[in-house]
Amino acid sequence: MASTAGQVIRCKAAVAWEAGKPLVIEEVEVAPPQKLEVRIKILFTSLCHTDIYFWEAKGQNPVFPRIFGHEAGGDHVLPVFTGECKECAHCKSEESNMCDLLRINTDRGVMLNDGKSRFSINGKPILHFVGTSTFSEYTVIHVGCVAKINPLAPLDKVCVLSCGISTGLGSTLNVAKPKKGSTVAVFGLGAVGLAAAEGARIAGASRIIGIDLNPNRFESAKKFGVTEFVNPKDHQKPVQEVIAEMTNGGVDRSIECTGHVDAMISAFECVHDGWGVAVLVGVPHKDAVFKTHPMNLLNERTLKGSFFGNYKPRTDLPSVVEKYMNKELELEKFITHEVPFAEINKAFDLMLKGEGLRCIIRM
Amino acid sequence: MASTAGQVIRCKAAVAWEAGKPLVIEEVEVAPPQKLEVRIKILFTSLCHTDIYFWEAKGQNPVFPRIFGHEAGGDHVLPVFTGECKECAHCKSEESNMCDLLRINTDRGVMLNDGKSRFSINGKPILHFVGTSTFSEYTVIHVGCVAKINPLAPLDKVCVLSCGISTGLGSTLNVAKPKKGSTVAVFGLGAVGLAAAEGARIAGASRIIGIDLNPNRFESAKKFGVTEFVNPKDHQKPVQEVIAEMTNGGVDRSIECTGHVDAMISAFECVHDGWGVAVLVGVPHKDAVFKTHPMNLLNERTLKGSFFGNYKPRTDLPSVVEKYMNKELELEKFITHEVPFAEINKAFDLMLKGEGLRCIIRM
Repeated sequence: MASTAGQVIRCKAAVAWEAGKPLVIEEVEVAPPQKLEVRIKILFTSLCHTDIYFWEAKGQNPVFPRIFGHEAGGDHVLPVFTGECKECAHCKSEESNMCDLLRINTDRGVMLNDGKSRFSINGKPILHFVGTSTFSEYTVIHVGCVAKINPLAPLDKVCVLSCGISTGLGSTLNVAKPKKGSTVAVFGLGAVGLAAAEGARIAGASRIIGIDLNPNRFESAKKFGVTEFVNPKDHQKPVQEVIAEMTNGGVDRSIECTGHVDAMISAFECVHDGWGVAVLVGVPHKDAVFKTHPMNLLNERTLKGSFFGNYKPRTDLPSVVEKYMNKELELEKFITHEVPFAEINKAFDLMLKGEGLRCIIRM
Repeated sequence: MASTAGQVIRCKAAVAWEAGKPLVIEEVEVAPPQKLEVRIKILFTSLCHTDIYFWEAKGQNPVFPRIFGHEAGGDHVLPVFTGECKECAHCKSEESNMCDLLRINTDRGVMLNDGKSRFSINGKPILHFVGTSTFSEYTVIHVGCVAKINPLAPLDKVCVLSCGISTGLGSTLNVAKPKKGSTVAVFGLGAVGLAAAEGARIAGASRIIGIDLNPNRFESAKKFGVTEFVNPKDHQKPVQEVIAEMTNGGVDRSIECTGHVDAMISAFECVHDGWGVAVLVGVPHKDAVFKTHPMNLLNERTLKGSFFGNYKPRTDLPSVVEKYMNKELELEKFITHEVPFAEINKAFDLMLKGEGLRCIIRM
């Protein structure tokens, strides 16, 4: 990198010029990193629903042109959409990972240091996305948003730990904390929910009940430890009642990974009184209202939310990579597709069709 | 007791003949205890809002004639309105105290064993209240609802640990678990809320913010460790915003002891994101709905409910008594009045007027 230090790098990036329109591979200029920034060569990236959500920009503030991408592996680091400054009250708290300085900001398209973008085409700025913009061969990232990992870790696998898989896994292992032999319900069997189930499998849950409206997801969920399936459409009564009947009063832990408020309420009300813990992971609609009778709480149920699986990006991600390296955590089963960078729009098509879990994009 | 074993005992009891009417001291017959029951001589009892609530029976199923009372000290035991059978899933769980067999049941006026009352006057049954009926010189209680305590403990003090004081204290020490130096908000400065504050004081909280609509409660709350006061009536904005401004984003822990659903919502929303924990203690109206935006949860706040301070009555109450014996817990400041049994209706008058905290009734 000595030859490019302090210099502008020209490289390929997939630029989203407009909401919902296919990305265009362009030659972009990537300015040198400023104070507390690093410029990273991205080797693999994958696509997550959050990219799709802000690319579609339905009901969102449109921020274009922009370079999306936030699940990725660089050389030998994982960029992360949220950060860890190690100075603020959250970073100093053992319980929080919601860094005041570097917490996810989906509206900001510029770097913190000078309020400008490091990407441009012929002098026209191209905006950043959540501080990562990994759909580019080179990107500039705040050092607080970069986790250094084991140099032996295969980046085409561990890149998925940048976002969704860690989010689901940590929501179980760090927040729900099911005991060995316990019963766990997982709402939503997409990648995040299956990672939550994987966490329950690793924790030694005896029953993992998967809940999804799409019956096609049930067969493949078995690989992630899911032992039983409930499709709310198959029942007249609320799914929380169905689950309570299946489990002699309720599950020990539940994890909500859909973001739909009705599923959040069901996930809370299906845990056992006296000791049940429900963890909300899926991001809700901005007008959503969570409602329940307070007696459901008074009867000693706990309701918690989780953000990025409560992992502190720099402090904790290396140990998640180690879980994969020592074969405790299985990542291969999350990776269902792979495309070269030139075909990145195929990854968007697959996710829009709901096909597969993670598509790795080889840069 | 040998002379009365297996015999009916005649003694005085304060009978509630009708909803809201003064109690009448009557001579009652107390039948001998049956299987898994004990007959106890009550030496001191006190009055709690729950007695008032079911005596007034507004919107409740009226269960009369009845002998109320559930905060009390016998010889040398504390009767408890909930129980611990030590056999059910809850009793076997380390996390729950909501015994399946002996959990509070305010509608039941009879003993579990035979579905009958042990009290009568000239053959007419007088009903029990929450399995304790301590407004009687002798009462019959399920053995699972009796905690054996240190025989050196003064019953005229530790009798208040049968209900409200343990409820508040345990909600802080067992559920909210504030760390030393943390900031705690307590909603409602009645006896339960002040016991929650006492728990925060014992835990070493650096700031304890008391919230109450009645400014007269503020001065005396200082004795329980409350350092700051907020009266929601003094502010235009919601009290959770006032508290967030006072505490640089929110308190570390909050405990809700009023039972009003708006206070529950404020208590939840005033805790800091990233690590805040809110504990609901006050019993809500049956039609109450707890509402919040799910993002308040996703931002890593925790919402829990507590019942009897999460104490298992038989297993844990002896250790709470020891906290008093070793002067860690101060009970004298909760006891503001004392009356002889013949004047029990004065204790009702004091509580209805909101005067004082606990009135000890000497049998």
